[in-house]
Amino acid sequence: MTEPTVRVTPLGGVGEIGKNCTVLECDDTILVIDAGLEFPDADLLGVDLVIPDFTYLIENKERIRAIVITHGHEDHVGALPFLLRDVQVPLYATPLTRGLIEGKLRRHHLLGKIELNTMAPGDELDLGPFQVTPFHVNHSIPDAVGLAIRTPLGLIVHSGDFKIDHTPLESKTTDLGVLARLSAEGVILLLSDSTNAESPGYTASESQLLGTFQSVFANAPGRVIVATFASLLSRVQLAIKTAAQFGRRVAIAGRSMEENTAIAEKLGFISFPPETRIPLHRINEFPPEEICVLATGSQGEPNSALARMASGRFRHISIQEGDTIMLSSKAIPGNETQIYRNIDNLFRRGANVVYGTKAGLHVSGHAAQEELKMMLNLLRPLYSVPVQGEYRMLQVHARLAYELGFEHEDVFVMGNGDCLELSTAGATLIDGPEIEDVFVDGSLVGDVGNTILRDRAALSRDGFVVERVSVDPEMGEIVGEPSIISQGFVYVPESGDLIEEALEAIHRIVESHLDDIDDVEQMENIIKQGLEKLFHKETRRRPVVIAMVTWV
Amino acid sequence: MTEPTVRVTPLGGVGEIGKNCTVLECDDTILVIDAGLEFPDADLLGVDLVIPDFTYLIENKERIRAIVITHGHEDHVGALPFLLRDVQVPLYATPLTRGLIEGKLRRHHLLGKIELNTMAPGDELDLGPFQVTPFHVNHSIPDAVGLAIRTPLGLIVHSGDFKIDHTPLESKTTDLGVLARLSAEGVILLLSDSTNAESPGYTASESQLLGTFQSVFANAPGRVIVATFASLLSRVQLAIKTAAQFGRRVAIAGRSMEENTAIAEKLGFISFPPETRIPLHRINEFPPEEICVLATGSQGEPNSALARMASGRFRHISIQEGDTIMLSSKAIPGNETQIYRNIDNLFRRGANVVYGTKAGLHVSGHAAQEELKMMLNLLRPLYSVPVQGEYRMLQVHARLAYELGFEHEDVFVMGNGDCLELSTAGATLIDGPEIEDVFVDGSLVGDVGNTILRDRAALSRDGFVVERVSVDPEMGEIVGEPSIISQGFVYVPESGDLIEEALEAIHRIVESHLDDIDDVEQMENIIKQGLEKLFHKETRRRPVVIAMVTWV
Repeated sequence: MTEPTVRVTPLGGVGEIGKNCTVLECDDTILVIDAGLEFPDADLLGVDLVIPDFTYLIENKERIRAIVITHGHEDHVGALPFLLRDVQVPLYATPLTRGLIEGKLRRHHLLGKIELNTMAPGDELDLGPFQVTPFHVNHSIPDAVGLAIRTPLGLIVHSGDFKIDHTPLESKTTDLGVLARLSAEGVILLLSDSTNAESPGYTASESQLLGTFQSVFANAPGRVIVATFASLLSRVQLAIKTAAQFGRRVAIAGRSMEENTAIAEKLGFISFPPETRIPLHRINEFPPEEICVLATGSQGEPNSALARMASGRFRHISIQEGDTIMLSSKAIPGNETQIYRNIDNLFRRGANVVYGTKAGLHVSGHAAQEELKMMLNLLRPLYSVPVQGEYRMLQVHARLAYELGFEHEDVFVMGNGDCLELSTAGATLIDGPEIEDVFVDGSLVGDVGNTILRDRAALSRDGFVVERVSVDPEMGEIVGEPSIISQGFVYVPESGDLIEEALEAIHRIVESHLDDIDDVEQMENIIKQGLEKLFHKETRRRPVVIAMVTWV
Repeated sequence: MTEPTVRVTPLGGVGEIGKNCTVLECDDTILVIDAGLEFPDADLLGVDLVIPDFTYLIENKERIRAIVITHGHEDHVGALPFLLRDVQVPLYATPLTRGLIEGKLRRHHLLGKIELNTMAPGDELDLGPFQVTPFHVNHSIPDAVGLAIRTPLGLIVHSGDFKIDHTPLESKTTDLGVLARLSAEGVILLLSDSTNAESPGYTASESQLLGTFQSVFANAPGRVIVATFASLLSRVQLAIKTAAQFGRRVAIAGRSMEENTAIAEKLGFISFPPETRIPLHRINEFPPEEICVLATGSQGEPNSALARMASGRFRHISIQEGDTIMLSSKAIPGNETQIYRNIDNLFRRGANVVYGTKAGLHVSGHAAQEELKMMLNLLRPLYSVPVQGEYRMLQVHARLAYELGFEHEDVFVMGNGDCLELSTAGATLIDGPEIEDVFVDGSLVGDVGNTILRDRAALSRDGFVVERVSVDPEMGEIVGEPSIISQGFVYVPESGDLIEEALEAIHRIVESHLDDIDDVEQMENIIKQGLEKLFHKETRRRPVVIAMVTWV
């Protein structure tokens, strides 16, 4: 009998935030933890979503025993439809997470085709060589868990996304008791959340927001509009409670906020005091000081409820003097410009906007440095892998471990394509499956790559020019007149001379080469180069030039 | 004799950061304060610079008496070449500011064509109805001033960009004595910097950085690379001093850093201890622990020295284990993605990177709320206009004034196109010249507008498709074969079917309409619409479609 090995592959890539997907393999069995997506950086032009490279899982689908989900955020469940359409395996999730996944599967016509299982903290799921026990953690969505995974080689702990909040607004704290028992059992490997590894100290408790919420509500002369993440249900509940306390009705604006609160209310994760909830179209029946609206758009997303209010495009609410808008969120890096533009627009309409890190309206859902140290010290794993974070966060997390006395060779900052292999001999990095980011654009998955992105970038900077000319090589002359169409390059009514010049250049180029060139493609190339040179000389711009020659 | 009036117009727009340009008018005389530029937001695709709309100044150039500059930052001097090429009027600046402007004018072949005058704090410049006295202020560039402007209606104070630093690293503090005397004289109008109006408390002193700099230098095992703004000369001097203290030579990487330090050294604003300065190509002659490099690239600008080091494209320096990189700067909103990508890349090469607001490596150059209150309370102007800031910052600044007891009607948050008119009767907002943002793209100024930007945005998302077909209307048939060229749309080798489908669609459309359509443009429109529909159905993308029909 061969010695067992356990292999851990971060299939969503390492050192990238979002698209979390961890693959555990023992003998011939694969266990998948999470399948998240990432929203693209601005330089991924036209890309809608970035998902993990599922090739390896699809090629080995008969070996997959289950998918276990830690919580219902998009960066942990968003890519599930893209995986499940090819790989129908049982899925395990806590009730709220399951509820959110069901909505997603319904929209992708996958509901009913997948075996969905509800799990709860303390359950022991026997999944072949893996015995998985979820434990409760605090995070910015309720019903989140970490995972204790018993393998033939020993106990692996996956922290999930967590913080240690001693006074959360949901009922339960991160289960330190379970963590202590796991520690006593002996942990060979800890995979731990690195999102907030750059923040010194402790992440503040969700309860700390209560005071600032009350103070803003108490001083608001008119309506209060609270914008936050639709999945941040403890924040949603806090806003509802505070609204009720100050005698305000609550309406909800924005599709994802409506959907999430409906699921959470049905499953008992949030509740409205009697007579608090009203439909959006009824808000004008009450005086402004009796209204609170929960809205999407804390990131300034152009089609969100708040952004439409800010630009006067929201049907039920026009922002007016006396409105108070609370941004109960942080800026996700890359969104700053649109967030601030939104705030400016709200001020322009006379609203008061309470925003920014110093306003005390938001706390993170992720463990800061002292909490990460506590997790490491409590579990004292043999080996440790910082996960869930951009590369610098993993490095900073690793440095925290070194400070606690972990040896450099026992902490693995993994790169894309790395796989950590555990055996009785120890832990080593080996080559894992090759992975690359997979881009979803429109209804197509994976066709957009570097070539298309490079073309789009060039087009975005200087537009394009299409030139068309018909040539009669027998007669050695141009037939009719050459023509030019351009878009995104120059403002044509003001650049008449340039277009004239370009048409003349086409004449000149064609006529001077008709004797020595009888190949269409070659002629097109020479025209293209000539025009590129002319445009750059006259404008210092470099439009994409397409030259079309018709040999008649 | 008519009563005098003074009109104040923020020509660079109000509530936009950058491109500062304030126009004062009294009787027939115009005084211009600053002429700055703004770097475009990411959604201004392909735009290189945004400058103020100088139309009004160009149309009234014979009335302009002078341009007075407060300090040498790009958002105050960057648009000067675009103004001075049309308007040759005398310019006044302090020595360092003048030195920086000279470099700029030289590059634009304007040096020698403009009357440049050096001014110093305390000077009394008689500029027609305006008597201008600069006073020293602390800012993140030396030799910055605010302006006391005496007019027939009374004293106007322009704060310039300022903070109140009691222990600056340059020799002089913001001149509170002069401000007190101005206050005693009586101030009718204060125009005051709003950049940092969102920050509670006081901005920390530049001296506070000394300790953190020393600590990072003391613990760095190899080279230290300090990235900061090239104009932040007090920071540059701090790095040089600390390097010398720890026995390190200093080399400079990056064109703007080289130019600015050369001008500042020549004018006595920075100095290198003996034998400290070495050229970049000699750094490998010394052991790493004896080297410090000052580099551009704190904003992750792709062609900056630091970004090229991070991606392995910098000739003289390859980042190695043991290198310590200090980011002594803040992230300008919108630059976060590229800054963090840069940091990730530096970590990937084994460097240690010290960065982030909590690292203690940067302080702002702008007054925070308590300093703004001090300015307001010290001067107690009759009227007050928050300037230099995005719209929300102006609003927050105005609210600070209300807290101090200023009446709402005496504080003016101006919008684009507003002009503040002062007369013996008081202050009122009137319509000023119409202004709009002017975009510089390549060598052309002002041709890029909404149409081009909209086209570029469409192209950046889904690329374009050009279709070409020749038709013989007499014979009622297509001549040859239609063809399709696309860029940025789909990856053609993987989308053969789609292109085939499109070619078939062209056949179908042309053939079914040859009887009823004999107009080229109409046929092109029908093909365009057919292809747009097909592409959206098959891909959910919306490429720009150009249909070209040749009637043969």
